[in-house]
Amino acid sequence: MSADLVETVVSLCERRGFVYPCGEIYGGTREAWDYGPLGVEMKENVKREWWRTVVQRRDDVVGIDSSVILPREVWQASGHVAALHDPLVECTSCHKRFRADQLVEEYAARTGLNVTEDRLGVVSCPNCGVRGQYTEPRAFTMMVKTHLGPVDSEEGMQYLRPETAQGIFVNFLNVLTTSRRRPPFGIGQIGKSFRNEITPGNFVFRTREFEQMEMAFFVEPGTDEKWHQYWIDERLRWYTDLGVNPANLRLHDHPREKLSHYSKRTVDIEYRFGFGGQEWAELEGIANRGDFDLTTHTNNSGVDLSYFEQSTNSRYRPFVIEPAVSVGRPMMAFLLDAYREDEAPNAKGGVDKRVVLSLDRRLAPVKAAVLPLSRNPDLTPKAREVAASLRQYWNVDFDDAGAIGRRYRRQDEIGTPFCVTVDFDSVYDHAVTVRERDSMAQARVSMDKLQGYLAAQLIGC
Amino acid sequence: MSADLVETVVSLCERRGFVYPCGEIYGGTREAWDYGPLGVEMKENVKREWWRTVVQRRDDVVGIDSSVILPREVWQASGHVAALHDPLVECTSCHKRFRADQLVEEYAARTGLNVTEDRLGVVSCPNCGVRGQYTEPRAFTMMVKTHLGPVDSEEGMQYLRPETAQGIFVNFLNVLTTSRRRPPFGIGQIGKSFRNEITPGNFVFRTREFEQMEMAFFVEPGTDEKWHQYWIDERLRWYTDLGVNPANLRLHDHPREKLSHYSKRTVDIEYRFGFGGQEWAELEGIANRGDFDLTTHTNNSGVDLSYFEQSTNSRYRPFVIEPAVSVGRPMMAFLLDAYREDEAPNAKGGVDKRVVLSLDRRLAPVKAAVLPLSRNPDLTPKAREVAASLRQYWNVDFDDAGAIGRRYRRQDEIGTPFCVTVDFDSVYDHAVTVRERDSMAQARVSMDKLQGYLAAQLIGC
Repeated sequence: MSADLVETVVSLCERRGFVYPCGEIYGGTREAWDYGPLGVEMKENVKREWWRTVVQRRDDVVGIDSSVILPREVWQASGHVAALHDPLVECTSCHKRFRADQLVEEYAARTGLNVTEDRLGVVSCPNCGVRGQYTEPRAFTMMVKTHLGPVDSEEGMQYLRPETAQGIFVNFLNVLTTSRRRPPFGIGQIGKSFRNEITPGNFVFRTREFEQMEMAFFVEPGTDEKWHQYWIDERLRWYTDLGVNPANLRLHDHPREKLSHYSKRTVDIEYRFGFGGQEWAELEGIANRGDFDLTTHTNNSGVDLSYFEQSTNSRYRPFVIEPAVSVGRPMMAFLLDAYREDEAPNAKGGVDKRVVLSLDRRLAPVKAAVLPLSRNPDLTPKAREVAASLRQYWNVDFDDAGAIGRRYRRQDEIGTPFCVTVDFDSVYDHAVTVRERDSMAQARVSMDKLQGYLAAQLIGC
Repeated sequence: MSADLVETVVSLCERRGFVYPCGEIYGGTREAWDYGPLGVEMKENVKREWWRTVVQRRDDVVGIDSSVILPREVWQASGHVAALHDPLVECTSCHKRFRADQLVEEYAARTGLNVTEDRLGVVSCPNCGVRGQYTEPRAFTMMVKTHLGPVDSEEGMQYLRPETAQGIFVNFLNVLTTSRRRPPFGIGQIGKSFRNEITPGNFVFRTREFEQMEMAFFVEPGTDEKWHQYWIDERLRWYTDLGVNPANLRLHDHPREKLSHYSKRTVDIEYRFGFGGQEWAELEGIANRGDFDLTTHTNNSGVDLSYFEQSTNSRYRPFVIEPAVSVGRPMMAFLLDAYREDEAPNAKGGVDKRVVLSLDRRLAPVKAAVLPLSRNPDLTPKAREVAASLRQYWNVDFDDAGAIGRRYRRQDEIGTPFCVTVDFDSVYDHAVTVRERDSMAQARVSMDKLQGYLAAQLIGC
């Protein structure tokens, strides 16, 4: 994708109410974005598709929803308190902190000079402009802290989770017992996580508050590499099945020296996001966490997180394959991938440019829009009636403002698969015109068959 | 409900994997509970029913999803930083803090002595046992703080939201513009909130981390009392429509002196929870917030949060009617209300006691269970096939462990509306037996009609 396209789509999202800058009337924050009426519907659709595919339709995966604030022992045991930090340098003039690698990159982009990290002395501070006055790099934790409880002391210090997966590991035995599962089986969950990112940015791509969709799949050691490949394939298929062009997806194997502290091997699914000079970026990571987590929690809690296989009379600690993704990234990939500009016939017999979001119907925030041909005491109430009846099943818009062509354009731009037009004939023939978004093909459908007609087109929505 | 019933249902929930104590292997926290495989499905069903009723099926309500961490100016303007606190006394011996009213209540319950708050001098500390050594009450904020950003200073101090509603108010103009709405209209949202409750407790009833379902309905001043009543009625209907016995619901008008700082009038829907000697407790609050929030944000942000009505050429600041509920409370009410003990025929021609959760089908975590009559090379694969095909549409269980009667009991206990039994005849007649949970009535249904048969019974699920 080009940087232009990213800008175009972000602007469309803000203009049409997919996403707003968080706390805009107070100047906004960089921590997060707020999802507007269209954004929240689309985001819920993305989450539902993930849940259906990864959890609900499978015999071997169940869901949970654990807390954002877990006992802090969890984060000491998991290694996050020790490992989740970035080395930062501080400008000794203004005391702002930066990642050295990003300072150098930004300086190079700004000046066209090729600079490496050991030449930080020539780099001016992006905040105060003073040149090269930096401390040595120091560890900075990305864990977000808070305090709970009636006593204001270190005792009440808590972390907001930086990943949902630990809530899965500490509930491993509970789920094993209450849901009568045995490996290979998985536990999935969707929920908010928080990281004190130094440099949030690129729209919803990197935010300090984000919503994760994670699943830990527990397998017998020795079968882990086979299952790792299985889940890489499954997750890739999820994106293409939901309409992403395979040419915009690729796999990236993390080099051994860049692996997370818990990982045996990690493969990213990358998408051609194309922002800021960087063509590819991580969409989703699929890690082979080995038995790192169950072992460390066994050692730290004193509770044995292993599985006893009766048929072979043997006990083992399962390995974990974990596909993990922040919902903002697929949202953005689906939007970028669906953006099209083409031409549509206008009322004067010519053509107009139109913008279409060719979103998979399951992802589209609005499934159908009901449009009276004009504002009229016969058509408007009839159209409202049609909208009300369809709204029992789907998210349905009603729009009677402006010329019909303009209203089609408005729906095309937000990816609405069907426009249902109530015209003057409708009053007599009790039928409506249904227009499909991508082909712009129109069909006349009797009102009493409309719900069935749309249901057949909107299977799985 | 009796305290016994609460205990019975809580124990069922823990045993069957609706809910686990958060971080149990590390001794647990009191902040929150984790939802297990059944709990997360039921909770999602409750949220979906709320969203459908309050947002999606209405022409006059749209949804959003705003951030947990908003700019801190929001919380100063909203009055929460100033108002959201409890007066606490501190034991000067062990330095634990307590709410004076709860100290006295607990002491009375423990000793049988009737003590009032002005006699705190006789009350022993529940933590260290020292008698009557308390400070004067002091304000204690229930706002949960954190720090974000690369500089570790007061500048980066942030609050986790104590209610989702402020995210709605600060986005009022954005939604008004991008969704082309006009009062009366509403904005709904579901999301996590955090309050540093002094005394979390009563299962999922009061937790420090909780998930809210809130909707702000913006109306013309003067029409607010009518709309307030409308939403009280609507919200009551939601509970009875989902199966709650009206005898267990009542309304409670907050006395003027106990109103929240923003409220003109608040009416609670109370449910007969019946824990700890207290029969009724708040299920949901429906507040008339007047123009408090839009006015304070107008004054503090400098952005005019008013609405211009073209038809009358007048500008006004809408009043807000706000139904707000934490999802844990309806969850608990639905579970308590659905709990039954009755009798079911056993294999010996007698009857056994059975436990049934008569949950509304839309709320039941599992919609159908597929059970091969016995573990058998003919029946098991056939039953798995049936389960896999139904799983495309609903959350479906498969169970082949133990006697059939026992497996029915297991499904009754978690509220599964339908059990589908594959027996030896199924191999020849390609039909299965469908048993309904409440009536225990059985019907023979041909396999190729099974999906349609269940779909007709599971409308809206």
